[in-house]
Amino acid sequence: MPHIDLHSDEPGLLGLLRFRPETGRLLSELAEVLLRGPSALTAGERELIAAHVSALNGCHFCSSAHGACAAIQLPEGMALVDQVRADASSAPVTPKLRALLAIASAVQHGGHNVSVAHVTEARLAGATDLEIHDTVLIAAAFCMYNRYVDGLDTIAPEDPAFYAVGAQLLVTFGYLAMSPPPGPGT
Amino acid sequence: MPHIDLHSDEPGLLGLLRFRPETGRLLSELAEVLLRGPSALTAGERELIAAHVSALNGCHFCSSAHGACAAIQLPEGMALVDQVRADASSAPVTPKLRALLAIASAVQHGGHNVSVAHVTEARLAGATDLEIHDTVLIAAAFCMYNRYVDGLDTIAPEDPAFYAVGAQLLVTFGYLAMSPPPGPGT
Repeated sequence: MPHIDLHSDEPGLLGLLRFRPETGRLLSELAEVLLRGPSALTAGERELIAAHVSALNGCHFCSSAHGACAAIQLPEGMALVDQVRADASSAPVTPKLRALLAIASAVQHGGHNVSVAHVTEARLAGATDLEIHDTVLIAAAFCMYNRYVDGLDTIAPEDPAFYAVGAQLLVTFGYLAMSPPPGPGT
Repeated sequence: MPHIDLHSDEPGLLGLLRFRPETGRLLSELAEVLLRGPSALTAGERELIAAHVSALNGCHFCSSAHGACAAIQLPEGMALVDQVRADASSAPVTPKLRALLAIASAVQHGGHNVSVAHVTEARLAGATDLEIHDTVLIAAAFCMYNRYVDGLDTIAPEDPAFYAVGAQLLVTFGYLAMSPPPGPGT
């Protein structure tokens, strides 16, 4: 049971977005820009980074939700998502994505853990400054979303079918569709 | 030197907001709502929570910037900020703020660290569900901002005068004044 009364049975982030619409709208917009906005990284790759960081943070809701979104947008599907969540350093991804996942792991441990060697390896594998930037910000943002969801002890369904259906909706309609309606003047 | 070329000498978060205006605007709006929007917690108390979490994360830029904002908005000034950053559990604050700072510390360690006992103590000290919610989200958000700032190795000035001047500007004009101009259609 969540630590506070959310006036809703919606699990994970969903109930939180509605509980505080002023922040809910901004958190939905941030997810939309980071995970689905214009980027040299595919939406599947970005969802994979989000799922990876969420797994490292032990956030079942976010790891499952973004793992499901990655699975339906990557040709390798859930098998690859599971390999990355088990051990990102040995998963069969491109050298560039492996280097970006290593940067995301470092960010999850703490910002100072990202080294010149991490960044050099990503750059040698073809990553641009913008891709490195976006990887750091996606990883940092999921250190927020994960703590928000688990810090208030929200409900995380066990059934993978819940996340699979949610992922179809997210991939079709986007994160803004999860957002509460805008307030007056916005 | 930052890990990527920000095309700017602006330190800390400032250069990052301008490097990626799509996310910069949202991150500025989120700070404005969380730290200065309508709330039962004073702006000084919220800045104190932000400075406390940033200190726990070892983020010199954010700890200094939000410590300076807290200092000029709390009657006890920088002396209290320093006491909280040194040991929040023994700092001379109200029982409610002490319980909320303990929740923020737990969030910094990880969302699952927030216990029923933490929440019960805050509630017995008079905290509402909304205050508990906002404390968790402020702490979670600074786990993002801190990792973003340090994960890209941005410049953090040593001189306290830099942060004192910045705090006067932030308290007067708000976080949206730091934001890049809105793009077309926003």
